[in-house]
Amino acid sequence: MELVIHALKEKLSDEQISTNETIRELHSKDETHHQTSLPDIVVFPKSTEEVSHIMKVAQEFKTPITPFGVGSSLEGHVIPYENGITVDFSLMNQILEIKESDLLVKVQPGVTREQLNQELKKYGLFFTVDPGANATIGGMAATNASGTTTVKYGVMRDQVRDMEVVLADGSVIHTGSLAAKSASGYHLNGLFIGSEGTLGCFTELTLQVHGIPEHIAAARATFPTINNAIESVTSILQAGIPIARVEFVDEASIIQINKFSETDYPIKPTLFMEFHGNEAGLQEDVEFTKEIMAHHGCEDFLSETNNAARNQLWDARHNLAYAYVHDYVGKKMMLTDVAVPISELANAVIYTRKELDKLGIPGGIVGHVGDGNFHTIVMIDMDNAEEVEKATQFNENVVLYALERGGTCTGEHGVGIGKKAYQRKEHGAALDIMIQIKTVLDPNNLLNPNKIIDVE
Amino acid sequence: MELVIHALKEKLSDEQISTNETIRELHSKDETHHQTSLPDIVVFPKSTEEVSHIMKVAQEFKTPITPFGVGSSLEGHVIPYENGITVDFSLMNQILEIKESDLLVKVQPGVTREQLNQELKKYGLFFTVDPGANATIGGMAATNASGTTTVKYGVMRDQVRDMEVVLADGSVIHTGSLAAKSASGYHLNGLFIGSEGTLGCFTELTLQVHGIPEHIAAARATFPTINNAIESVTSILQAGIPIARVEFVDEASIIQINKFSETDYPIKPTLFMEFHGNEAGLQEDVEFTKEIMAHHGCEDFLSETNNAARNQLWDARHNLAYAYVHDYVGKKMMLTDVAVPISELANAVIYTRKELDKLGIPGGIVGHVGDGNFHTIVMIDMDNAEEVEKATQFNENVVLYALERGGTCTGEHGVGIGKKAYQRKEHGAALDIMIQIKTVLDPNNLLNPNKIIDVE
Repeated sequence: MELVIHALKEKLSDEQISTNETIRELHSKDETHHQTSLPDIVVFPKSTEEVSHIMKVAQEFKTPITPFGVGSSLEGHVIPYENGITVDFSLMNQILEIKESDLLVKVQPGVTREQLNQELKKYGLFFTVDPGANATIGGMAATNASGTTTVKYGVMRDQVRDMEVVLADGSVIHTGSLAAKSASGYHLNGLFIGSEGTLGCFTELTLQVHGIPEHIAAARATFPTINNAIESVTSILQAGIPIARVEFVDEASIIQINKFSETDYPIKPTLFMEFHGNEAGLQEDVEFTKEIMAHHGCEDFLSETNNAARNQLWDARHNLAYAYVHDYVGKKMMLTDVAVPISELANAVIYTRKELDKLGIPGGIVGHVGDGNFHTIVMIDMDNAEEVEKATQFNENVVLYALERGGTCTGEHGVGIGKKAYQRKEHGAALDIMIQIKTVLDPNNLLNPNKIIDVE
Repeated sequence: MELVIHALKEKLSDEQISTNETIRELHSKDETHHQTSLPDIVVFPKSTEEVSHIMKVAQEFKTPITPFGVGSSLEGHVIPYENGITVDFSLMNQILEIKESDLLVKVQPGVTREQLNQELKKYGLFFTVDPGANATIGGMAATNASGTTTVKYGVMRDQVRDMEVVLADGSVIHTGSLAAKSASGYHLNGLFIGSEGTLGCFTELTLQVHGIPEHIAAARATFPTINNAIESVTSILQAGIPIARVEFVDEASIIQINKFSETDYPIKPTLFMEFHGNEAGLQEDVEFTKEIMAHHGCEDFLSETNNAARNQLWDARHNLAYAYVHDYVGKKMMLTDVAVPISELANAVIYTRKELDKLGIPGGIVGHVGDGNFHTIVMIDMDNAEEVEKATQFNENVVLYALERGGTCTGEHGVGIGKKAYQRKEHGAALDIMIQIKTVLDPNNLLNPNKIIDVE
């Protein structure tokens, strides 16, 4: 590694290159149960030119490269299983330009979601993708992140107009344009978003943003059964109500919320909702939703237009994962992440809840049910081999259930190391095309190797 | 070609293979001024298996393959400049499945947009993408088509969940899943959509559809200047009004509409609009729009909720291209198709109108202005070399104007043969990545060769 460090120093200063044990340790893990692994070197580039230099050095010495945002990934994306160089983008955290009249913003990859929204707020704007974690925009693009607002505004891939990407050989490309739509050339934006650092490193992103909605209403509804709750969402989507968020929370998770957030929500299958729009339209949407839900056995429907009450509701929902982590000190979090066609969702959640009950390991289900996507949070003791084995098998059962019904093994967390084993089952012969693309863009397999696909 | 025909007959019947002069001639052109070229053979497959066989025969004999829907392309996509085999998908025109509760529909590529909507109507559903022409779904996916409703519902790429694609070697892949979102593997859906037959042939498409909106309102507004009209659209977008269509039509084009559709619209820069939603919300949206437009000097704002009046308005807009063709018998239509960031749109349209006036060739401007995309319809006499030359230069000037402002050379018509010369200027080094992808997926360059990019 001495030679690598020497070569890096041609363009990077000493403080931008670290082999410190603590720094390496911080870059050896993500937020979940995945096995840790140390990078040899952590670098902190400040410019595209420096990232390009790092890539060239990596090629010269055949050293693996793993990009790193804040480490909030959930499938081991940022863990360098072949060691090498971790590229930490925390010094590339500038909001470069806000083009109000175009509803566009240009940022560096290390800008975090909350940092961006805080700045946009001054202009009456907001960035729609909300995965819960305060992830970096670069990381969110790398995993095609989505979250609670996706049912209305779409996933990360829908928000990115253009990216500057440094390729394996250090060359720099742009993947899109500033136009709202284009039919020019192959869709490289789409290809690179969700590529999890395996095809290149993002150094600049131009995103579309939205005006903060004129009016916002939130609502909470409880149901006697999971099936009632989820069937009511299907009806809402079919009715074309443009709901902005619709989150399912199961009983076990409501208990965690009540404990952590000091709320006293009824311990029932619950939907958290949000509506964006003009005042009259919103009122009609909320009324119509209430009516549909009553039809599906809703026991309690409470709507809130007051800001503080709305925030309390969404903070409670957002803090759910932390509530579990907080309540089970010493355990690690495993998250399932399948998405299924909406008609399969109620049965999928019921199946998953039953499987989870059989496990005898604490956990609960939450879901971005408008997209057919749900997570099981499972708290496992990593020193208990049997528990790890059982939880892993449970995760696999849920994946196979989803794939057999036309779903996907990951709705939003990405493949990383955790879902690699299911890529062939999900994509069939299409996986060979992905391998061909990976091989042509990264012939030495140095960009986040072992993630998404195995090329050998 | 005798050997090729012999090989094709292993799986295709005699009636599915044509070398008839009239049939070949029908497959030698699209709807525009682009130079024609005859295929040697036209085949009419009925199944994925047959398409796979055609691909294998093409590889064996190194014969170019050009897919063909109804020939409504606008940049020469379907014209076989290297002759060979044209694959006409008109016999693969079945709507295979309508999954109401998932808001999904599975179709063969030869299904046309109007055929699909006619069937969906029975279920209270509609397919959102409306490019005007009654194109095939396969062709629309191949060019990433969009149109009047894109400002609200998105482009073709946003609607496709999954495609079955036959690759150059005859193998068959699926590019997506039935889940509403996914973070699994590379985004092959996005890569193949817009690939214009250069990476494979689509044999099945699963699309998302929407419920027909509960309430629809249409409106027409006239302005003293182009600038007033377009600036008002920018304001509407910034205000976050979820407008479903907003089309700009210039004075020259209003004259054509009045002539062809027997309307008496004021000869002024005009916006045609549509709003979808619930009754109360819609009313508020229309009122707010009217207010914003008054601010921008709107002279006349007429809204219609009545079905017949709405249809008349949109028929008039949709028939505009035919109005020009009808009025200039013997001339051919050339269409510009740039998209620019919305802040550049007013100036871009004003620039284009001035350049068009200088030409002295009849034509007008229409635009999907909510997306920053506009077209100039130019009617040219193909026997007048000077006129062709001037019109071509004009098209180029508009493209360069857009590219210099962060726009794209094609908002929705695609590259085909017409925009190939601008791919390097628009994509820079990213074009090399596209060439690499094309080369790895079609090593013999047989799939719609000469379109989008030149591989040599």
